[in-house]
Amino acid sequence: MNSELTNAQRADVLIRALPYIKRYNNKIVVIKYGGSAMLSDDLKKAVMGDIVLLSLIGVKVVLVHGGGPEITDMLGKVGKKSEFLNGLRVTDEETADIVQMVLAGKISKGLVALIGNMGGKAIGLSGMDGGMIEAKKLDEKLGFVGDIVKVNPNPILDVLDKGYIPVISTLGYDNEGNCYNINADTAAASIAGTLKAESLISMTDTIGILRDQNDPQSLIPLIKVSDAPQLMREGVIFGGMIPKVECCIEAIRRGVKKVFILDGRIPHSILIETLTDEGSGTMFV
Amino acid sequence: MNSELTNAQRADVLIRALPYIKRYNNKIVVIKYGGSAMLSDDLKKAVMGDIVLLSLIGVKVVLVHGGGPEITDMLGKVGKKSEFLNGLRVTDEETADIVQMVLAGKISKGLVALIGNMGGKAIGLSGMDGGMIEAKKLDEKLGFVGDIVKVNPNPILDVLDKGYIPVISTLGYDNEGNCYNINADTAAASIAGTLKAESLISMTDTIGILRDQNDPQSLIPLIKVSDAPQLMREGVIFGGMIPKVECCIEAIRRGVKKVFILDGRIPHSILIETLTDEGSGTMFV
Amino acid sequence: MNSELTNAQRADVLIRALPYIKRYNNKIVVIKYGGSAMLSDDLKKAVMGDIVLLSLIGVKVVLVHGGGPEITDMLGKVGKKSEFLNGLRVTDEETADIVQMVLAGKISKGLVALIGNMGGKAIGLSGMDGGMIEAKKLDEKLGFVGDIVKVNPNPILDVLDKGYIPVISTLGYDNEGNCYNINADTAAASIAGTLKAESLISMTDTIGILRDQNDPQSLIPLIKVSDAPQLMREGVIFGGMIPKVECCIEAIRRGVKKVFILDGRIPHSILIETLTDEGSGTMFV
Amino acid sequence: MNSELTNAQRADVLIRALPYIKRYNNKIVVIKYGGSAMLSDDLKKAVMGDIVLLSLIGVKVVLVHGGGPEITDMLGKVGKKSEFLNGLRVTDEETADIVQMVLAGKISKGLVALIGNMGGKAIGLSGMDGGMIEAKKLDEKLGFVGDIVKVNPNPILDVLDKGYIPVISTLGYDNEGNCYNINADTAAASIAGTLKAESLISMTDTIGILRDQNDPQSLIPLIKVSDAPQLMREGVIFGGMIPKVECCIEAIRRGVKKVFILDGRIPHSILIETLTDEGSGTMFV
Amino acid sequence: MNSELTNAQRADVLIRALPYIKRYNNKIVVIKYGGSAMLSDDLKKAVMGDIVLLSLIGVKVVLVHGGGPEITDMLGKVGKKSEFLNGLRVTDEETADIVQMVLAGKISKGLVALIGNMGGKAIGLSGMDGGMIEAKKLDEKLGFVGDIVKVNPNPILDVLDKGYIPVISTLGYDNEGNCYNINADTAAASIAGTLKAESLISMTDTIGILRDQNDPQSLIPLIKVSDAPQLMREGVIFGGMIPKVECCIEAIRRGVKKVFILDGRIPHSILIETLTDEGSGTMFV
Amino acid sequence: MNSELTNAQRADVLIRALPYIKRYNNKIVVIKYGGSAMLSDDLKKAVMGDIVLLSLIGVKVVLVHGGGPEITDMLGKVGKKSEFLNGLRVTDEETADIVQMVLAGKISKGLVALIGNMGGKAIGLSGMDGGMIEAKKLDEKLGFVGDIVKVNPNPILDVLDKGYIPVISTLGYDNEGNCYNINADTAAASIAGTLKAESLISMTDTIGILRDQNDPQSLIPLIKVSDAPQLMREGVIFGGMIPKVECCIEAIRRGVKKVFILDGRIPHSILIETLTDEGSGTMFV
Repeated sequence: MNSELTNAQRADVLIRALPYIKRYNNKIVVIKYGGSAMLSDDLKKAVMGDIVLLSLIGVKVVLVHGGGPEITDMLGKVGKKSEFLNGLRVTDEETADIVQMVLAGKISKGLVALIGNMGGKAIGLSGMDGGMIEAKKLDEKLGFVGDIVKVNPNPILDVLDKGYIPVISTLGYDNEGNCYNINADTAAASIAGTLKAESLISMTDTIGILRDQNDPQSLIPLIKVSDAPQLMREGVIFGGMIPKVECCIEAIRRGVKKVFILDGRIPHSILIETLTDEGSGTMFV
Repeated sequence: MNSELTNAQRADVLIRALPYIKRYNNKIVVIKYGGSAMLSDDLKKAVMGDIVLLSLIGVKVVLVHGGGPEITDMLGKVGKKSEFLNGLRVTDEETADIVQMVLAGKISKGLVALIGNMGGKAIGLSGMDGGMIEAKKLDEKLGFVGDIVKVNPNPILDVLDKGYIPVISTLGYDNEGNCYNINADTAAASIAGTLKAESLISMTDTIGILRDQNDPQSLIPLIKVSDAPQLMREGVIFGGMIPKVECCIEAIRRGVKKVFILDGRIPHSILIETLTDEGSGTMFV
Repeated sequence: MNSELTNAQRADVLIRALPYIKRYNNKIVVIKYGGSAMLSDDLKKAVMGDIVLLSLIGVKVVLVHGGGPEITDMLGKVGKKSEFLNGLRVTDEETADIVQMVLAGKISKGLVALIGNMGGKAIGLSGMDGGMIEAKKLDEKLGFVGDIVKVNPNPILDVLDKGYIPVISTLGYDNEGNCYNINADTAAASIAGTLKAESLISMTDTIGILRDQNDPQSLIPLIKVSDAPQLMREGVIFGGMIPKVECCIEAIRRGVKKVFILDGRIPHSILIETLTDEGSGTMFV
Repeated sequence: MNSELTNAQRADVLIRALPYIKRYNNKIVVIKYGGSAMLSDDLKKAVMGDIVLLSLIGVKVVLVHGGGPEITDMLGKVGKKSEFLNGLRVTDEETADIVQMVLAGKISKGLVALIGNMGGKAIGLSGMDGGMIEAKKLDEKLGFVGDIVKVNPNPILDVLDKGYIPVISTLGYDNEGNCYNINADTAAASIAGTLKAESLISMTDTIGILRDQNDPQSLIPLIKVSDAPQLMREGVIFGGMIPKVECCIEAIRRGVKKVFILDGRIPHSILIETLTDEGSGTMFV
Repeated sequence: MNSELTNAQRADVLIRALPYIKRYNNKIVVIKYGGSAMLSDDLKKAVMGDIVLLSLIGVKVVLVHGGGPEITDMLGKVGKKSEFLNGLRVTDEETADIVQMVLAGKISKGLVALIGNMGGKAIGLSGMDGGMIEAKKLDEKLGFVGDIVKVNPNPILDVLDKGYIPVISTLGYDNEGNCYNINADTAAASIAGTLKAESLISMTDTIGILRDQNDPQSLIPLIKVSDAPQLMREGVIFGGMIPKVECCIEAIRRGVKKVFILDGRIPHSILIETLTDEGSGTMFV
Repeated sequence: MNSELTNAQRADVLIRALPYIKRYNNKIVVIKYGGSAMLSDDLKKAVMGDIVLLSLIGVKVVLVHGGGPEITDMLGKVGKKSEFLNGLRVTDEETADIVQMVLAGKISKGLVALIGNMGGKAIGLSGMDGGMIEAKKLDEKLGFVGDIVKVNPNPILDVLDKGYIPVISTLGYDNEGNCYNINADTAAASIAGTLKAESLISMTDTIGILRDQNDPQSLIPLIKVSDAPQLMREGVIFGGMIPKVECCIEAIRRGVKKVFILDGRIPHSILIETLTDEGSGTMFV
């Protein structure tokens, strides 16, 4: 598709990236990756390509991934049914085991391998590695669904310092040897906050926050944290978007400079957002 | 059991460890961990305790683990039967997926968590992390059973350099995105050789190599690599011990100073071997 | 002009730059800058933009500039006529003074200021700074026209190490306190060779080497050093291009991996050459 | 004597040392060494062995030694009689000379040699080295008995940083070139305080502080600094123990975490105190 | 002239330099260099010799130079007449160009070459290099005469850190690409203040501040900053010395420890002031 | 005595030191110090002043001292008579003890204190410190007179690296805990050779090597190592000077660039030799 571009156009795209490269140089960007963008092989490659590119031009990328659909899939294979309580999966010990295997064994290491094949260097970390995420039960009735007690940034910083992209599975541990499943949006916000990241990019299956659900042109490009409660009351932010937005607000509150909700279904939406003067999705400040 | 010891005896044990601590100070020791020592929770804690202790007194411990029984167990849960060819599991893509999940997701991260709970710091690495183990098919008929093409020591050294114990799942990758299951003994020997480790300790379910199978007192404490072929011909080294011994010989050949086959069923056999003037098992030089 | 591009096209240009960014990461690229590209303010800005961009994405750019027309201009202002001998300016002490002022005072510092205004960091160095270029008279009749005795790479490497782009005026010194004017092509080749640069990019006022002077489509994209003598004999390489090509060959011979002759009249020809799969000009290997 | 221990008992002693090794890892421990423990060759070897072991497992040991009996011995040899005032030796210039020779020449260098023979690395420092201890006269009548003006921790930290055990003779200097003899307990407390040591271990010729002098079972294992005055009033702390306890209190007051008074006559009492869950002697907190 | 000195006298001079060497060791000394000391070749060599010597014994020398007479000279050569306003040269764009060439091209690089020939290592920096001096117009009527907006100390510190003597031309830049001529005394004071220099040495064509203009014996060796206004009112400080003294006071106010006005016409006045117990000129504190 | 010098003369002495400072910058100079220069307090101060000055201007000075007269003196005090065999003191255990105390306790620490009082930083090292000098018996009949087995340069380099002047007592140790007295000239040559020192300066009580013993004007300023045997045969080098010269030759043979024999009775002869174009004494190359 690029074939019709002139060299001048190519050069123009690159040279316009200059101020953005300068802005993000040596800064930490946390990317929360999940949903459709993770299920399509083509989108997955595009996202990993974007990440390797950002990493090469000096951005310290931290990748935090989810994996709900693959967990459900694996639970199905072993014939385990999940019960849900307020949208959260009741996680008994056997389920926690499957979650750990799918997130830290399959998805994380799969992304690491894909980054490697695209020319980058990554290490897959879970919340247990280096004592990164200490957790406790969120609610006795939910079993091993974790509430973050403390994020230890050192394993992430050590891995970044050695030039690797950390690929993080949002599991947590406690001192009795239990493993917890932690919501990836919550964990990404908490990690970004602890790292005082320059930005947190959250990939979703929507085009961002729309003033009118029926009108894709009504995208709200920028939301001030102080205006969010009003937008929730008005129903502009609603349903599954509410906890996501709450995570965004929490991240800002803890020192992240900018938070973006991007449409993960658009290839290279990360590059477009970070390295061009175009934007897609909604930014919180 | 320690309660009857006098302080003088305690001090004596500690002070006699001095020359051994000095010898291993800042040296790399690769421990291949598998078999019974991994299935019993008590033994597992004892082994992790030994590793944390060695790490604290300045030894650079690299832990390489296996996981055959747990793989079989998980394959059973998803109703997948394994076919074997010359003792090796035919590994189709679905099986490779399960192997990856069990090794890198469950066992590795479980050991990491246990090390953390005992006061150590560990990071779980697979062969994909940082491009550590490149592999190719060992035999087309075996599917994704891997033959090591190259070991890249940098991810291991980087993680050691930051003060973590690397806990390695012996998976391999190729440039087409495949994941391979690699025999843990082979991988441990190859890793120890690449790292020019001071020693490789291989934990087994036997008490070492016996001259007379029926006489546990006939343990051979030391075998010169040059004498091994004769011992194989004589049937002293036989059956499943042959490939293990071949790995030991290969490690020595690639520059590892000493290789030990230890009885993993004895608690703290690692400490006894490394920090006391007693030994258990067989040493290859 | 970029306005008609879609986001997908923009992303595509960026993502295709990935392998090139990886290739040049942390490598030294020497750019010989002169001719038309230096006289037009727009082209000058475009070149400096390219250099700042390369520098930001991790390329160690060394800029070597010429300045013949501006020297002629200044000599005119002070009413000094230049005599030429075989195309080289006879340089008496007064002329040498003017050359030093124009190169090290005006052009070098002007480029440094421009790089600064575009978001980069540069330091202007002459051959005297840190004892970089020791020279002697090329020919007694030419006066202070210098022949390089030795290039000391340390001032360049020190300045690169601190994160600055060195902007080099090709003056030389001797131990009697004389200052020499050195041909910029020769100096750039010598500097690139001493630095064992990844590549040397020489900007000219031609589109590269054409097989047929009258046919711009007949550009020879790649010349093996071993084929150059034949091309000179055939007259394909001729006139003022001969010394330039000889410098290219000398650079290759001294360890530079690739040498490019680019058309400096095309905006962003450096970016197109280094970060896209398009090329312009001729490459020597 | 160890010969009757089983391997399991040996392993048990080592593994129980783990939390203690962890606690003291990279921490500074100051050991005040004198009295009987210094006069018996066997005890001296035992103490140096303990120190080398602690040093090898990552403790930063600082050894401060006394030497009263050897000074008296040497003064005898040169036919010099000492006068005492309130238990302190009146130190004229000739005596100060002898003190300096015995402490810095004989004892310090002898301990350094012994540490070397046991596999450790030490450097003998006096208060003059690197300007470590500035002193002034404690009392005009006592001559060159020193009162500490300032401890400069840099020579100690520099020597530790290079991996040596500093062995310190408690001499002091002033700006007029005089050398002072300083009480070793006082100096050790002052050094430990300046270094903000993790602990100060003071070796004595008693088993610790006894509630009833006639009952060795009445050892007080722990004394709060705030309770010490009452114990002095009650006569539980009395005689020569009073100034020692005052040094312990002063060390705690200046930031040392824990201070121990150990019985130097028991071999390896340092190891038992620091690396086992047994204790001997009295701890101040 | 040295030939009549005895070795004892030579040694005495050197040994008396000891406390001064100690005082200035690793400290930053800014030298403002201009006037007669710059016009005589012998004096220039003497000053550069002093600077190389100071640099070799561990002083971090920063050289700030002027160049009024050489600018006037060059303007004359191109037939450009200067107009003056309150003693300041009206600087149109063409004049600014000449100033830049003379200062950054001729004088700075000439001093760099001279330092090199005397065994030192220098790099010539202008206010544009590394974005060192941001400036704006001092007065619209004066054209490109600059008023300092901000001094960025990093290029100076980076160059010092790599072991070079920075030789600074007092030019400034703004974000529109203009180049400004800045008074060297003002710039030196501002640079010394930003660097928190140990001392600022200002070389002039007078022997210092005299209480009685007609009596060279009436030199005031030391002036407290608080006494300066009174001395101005009394006419002791008058004429061209007033702005110089104001720069000295400004430097003291911004954290420079000591400021010296030295007679640049006396060879080696810098050495005499810094390394002997003699002084020449006037010191401000 | 300096009072009659003009400032110009002072400056001249300093500026002439420049090339010498440059030559010795960051180089190791070993000074063997003994004889009369050590017995006079004034000369001692002068020597220490020279050493502090050299250290401050960037020379890495290593001071090796002797102490024969002070040993004899102390042996006298304890009523111990020395027997001599071929000019070497028969050293029984008691004598060895006294030697250790006098060298490492009195002289070394005394010099350290003096250096401190003159503004330098020193640490006194003996051959035991850090395992620096391993020795064995030179001759059974001589007792603890040592022959050097090996010099370990690390303690010297570590102490230099931290900015201290090592002051070395030439004692040696063996693995049985014995302490040996080693000839200071031999030890200095061996240390200088191991350190590949730039120069070794040996202070003696003569004015150097004279062609005619009765004519102080007949000093031989330079001797080639290859010419020394002939000079010995001729009797120009004779008596106690022979072993000294043999040490000088040995040092040159082991890689020391230049060796000087200086007259220690002349104040500041070290400074005159190293920092002026005058010389005193004899140089071996």
